[in-house]
Amino acid sequence: MAPIAVSLGDPAGIGPEIVAKAWAARDGHVLPPFVAVGDARAIERVSAGPLRRVDSMDEAALVFADALPVLHIDQGGDITPGVPDVDGARSALHALEVAVGLARSAAAAALVTGPVSKAQLYGVGFTHPGQTEFVAERCGIARDNAVMMLAGPTLRVVPLTTHVPLAQVPGLLTIELIVAKALATARGLRRDFGIASPRLAFAGLNPHAGEGGALGREEIDVIAPAIAQLKEQGVDATGPFAADTMFHPRARAGYDAALCPYHDQALVPLKTLHFDEGVNMTLGLPVVRTSPDHGTAFALAGRDAAHPGAMIAAIAMAGEAARRRAAAA
Amino acid sequence: MAPIAVSLGDPAGIGPEIVAKAWAARDGHVLPPFVAVGDARAIERVSAGPLRRVDSMDEAALVFADALPVLHIDQGGDITPGVPDVDGARSALHALEVAVGLARSAAAAALVTGPVSKAQLYGVGFTHPGQTEFVAERCGIARDNAVMMLAGPTLRVVPLTTHVPLAQVPGLLTIELIVAKALATARGLRRDFGIASPRLAFAGLNPHAGEGGALGREEIDVIAPAIAQLKEQGVDATGPFAADTMFHPRARAGYDAALCPYHDQALVPLKTLHFDEGVNMTLGLPVVRTSPDHGTAFALAGRDAAHPGAMIAAIAMAGEAARRRAAAA
Repeated sequence: MAPIAVSLGDPAGIGPEIVAKAWAARDGHVLPPFVAVGDARAIERVSAGPLRRVDSMDEAALVFADALPVLHIDQGGDITPGVPDVDGARSALHALEVAVGLARSAAAAALVTGPVSKAQLYGVGFTHPGQTEFVAERCGIARDNAVMMLAGPTLRVVPLTTHVPLAQVPGLLTIELIVAKALATARGLRRDFGIASPRLAFAGLNPHAGEGGALGREEIDVIAPAIAQLKEQGVDATGPFAADTMFHPRARAGYDAALCPYHDQALVPLKTLHFDEGVNMTLGLPVVRTSPDHGTAFALAGRDAAHPGAMIAAIAMAGEAARRRAAAA
Repeated sequence: MAPIAVSLGDPAGIGPEIVAKAWAARDGHVLPPFVAVGDARAIERVSAGPLRRVDSMDEAALVFADALPVLHIDQGGDITPGVPDVDGARSALHALEVAVGLARSAAAAALVTGPVSKAQLYGVGFTHPGQTEFVAERCGIARDNAVMMLAGPTLRVVPLTTHVPLAQVPGLLTIELIVAKALATARGLRRDFGIASPRLAFAGLNPHAGEGGALGREEIDVIAPAIAQLKEQGVDATGPFAADTMFHPRARAGYDAALCPYHDQALVPLKTLHFDEGVNMTLGLPVVRTSPDHGTAFALAGRDAAHPGAMIAAIAMAGEAARRRAAAA
C-alpha cells in the first residue's frame, strides 16, 4: 500500500507535534506508512525524532521505518508555535491541496488532514466552510453527499445537520436529507469498515423522541417516514429513539452508527466517551479521508503537551479503510 | 433521622422490585432507614425478603433492620407485573400523596418517588405533567422555582428547559429563566450537597456555543448576559461552552453542575455515563425529593431483571441531603 498523506494543518497549532508523536508510536499501534505534508520546520521545532525531507511517495515509503518522511512546503515567514499568522494559514492550505492531490491521484493511499484554523484560512481567501467541503469539491462530490461521521472505539455517530444554529435544525430536516445521508452512511460502513449489513439507529429530534407527538411531530412527520423508505430499500434502519437512552454501553451494542438530527446530539456522546481518540471520517468520497476530531489547540502548541491519540486513530482508521478498498477493487 | 418515605410508583412496574432490592442491599450501601409506601401485595409478589406492614414512622424505624417496612395502601384489584391498569394507577397516585404528606409533615426525613406511568395517571385524572410538578404544588412552590437536577457519580446536570419540543427551546430561553434556575441550583448544591461555593458551567445552545455569533446568537444575547448577572450576585458561573467539550473526564472536574439549555443536551451525557445509577433530584423544595432516573419498565416487571442501582442511589442521595439539612437547622 502507498503511504498515507497527512497534512500538518496550521504549522503554529499542535498538528506538527501530533504527527511526529504518531510516527514515534508507529510500531506500538501498527500504523501504516505515512508522509507528513507541510512545512518541515514546524516539525523540526517540536520533535526530537528523526525527520527526512522527501520528494516522492516512493522515497517516503522507503524511509518511513527509520524517519518521519516530510514532503516539505516552504511558505516563508517564521513559525512560532501558538502564534498563528498569514504565512502559516497559506502553508496549511497549500499542504491540504497537495495532500488531496496525492490521494486523488492514488499516489497516496488515503488522506488524513491535520487541524486548521478556519478563522486564519478565511483570512487568506479560503471560501469553504471547512476542510471537509474543500476535499469534497476537489473530489467532485456535492456537499450533501459527503457525510461527516465521528468515530471512537465504541461509538460511531453521524450528525444529519452540522454547523447551523439550533433554531434552524427543525426546518432543515427533510425525508430526502435523511435518506441521502443514511444511504451514504450505510455504503461507507460496508466499503470502509467491512460491515456487510450496517445497523443504523436514528435519534429523535425532540425529548423522548417526541413522546408520540406530545413533545413535537418531527419524528412522526419526517424521521419515521425516512426510516420506512430506508427499510424498503433494504437498509437495517431503526428508531427514532429517545436520544438519552441510545448511548449507554448496552444500547451502543445494538447498532453500527447512530444518526442524529443535530450536531450536539451526535458530538456530545462521542466526545463524552472518546474525547482523546475521536476520528472525523468523511463518507461518500472517492478517496479515504479522516482527521483527528479536535482543533489546532494553539494554547497547547510548542509545549509538548498535545495528546496524539486522535491523530493515531485517524491514521489507523484511514489505513484500514484504504486496505479494504484496495482488497475490494 | 426519621425514615425516608419511598413511594412504590406503579405496582405493575419495576418500582416494588427495586425497592425490595434496595432494602436487601441496605448494609452494603449504608442506606438510611426507609419505608415503602404503596400496595404491599406488589412487593410480596416480587420479593422473597422479609416484609412488615407498619402503621407509623416510629414502627418503620424499629423494624427496618429486620424487614422492609411497608405502609400499605390497598386500592383493590389484582396486580399483575407488566400489566398496568386503573387500580394500579390509583394506587400509585395515592402512594405519592401519602409519601409527600409524610415528608411535608417531617414525619419522613425525605421523599423518594418510584416510577409511575404518566399515561396511566392521566387516565385517572392526574393533571400535572409529572410527579415533580405534583410535589412542587403540594409544597406551595411555583413550577419555575423547582429545578430538575440529574445526578450520577461523576456528573450533575440541570436542563434549563425540559419536556418541550426542540423547536420551542430557543424562544423559551430567557435571561430571567436562566438566572432563576441557576440561583436555585446554587442554593441546592450548598444546602443539599454541602458545596460552599458551587461552580456552575453553562452549555451554549448552538454548535460550538455559536462560534462568536456565526452559528446563532442566543449565547451572546441571552446566556452570556445571564452569566454576567449571576457573577454580579457572587455565583461562580462560567461559559457558555461548546456542549461537546464539556463532558469528558477532565472537563467534568471543572464544575459542580452543568446547566444546559435543553433536555437532551443534559440527559444524553448523564445517561451515557450513568445509565443505571442516575438520580433525579428536585431542587428548590422545602422537602428533599429524589427519584431513580428511569421509568416503570413494564416489560421487565415480574422477571427479577430490574437493576436497583438508581433506586439505591436515590435513597442514599436523599438521606445525605436530609442529614445536611437537619445538621444546618
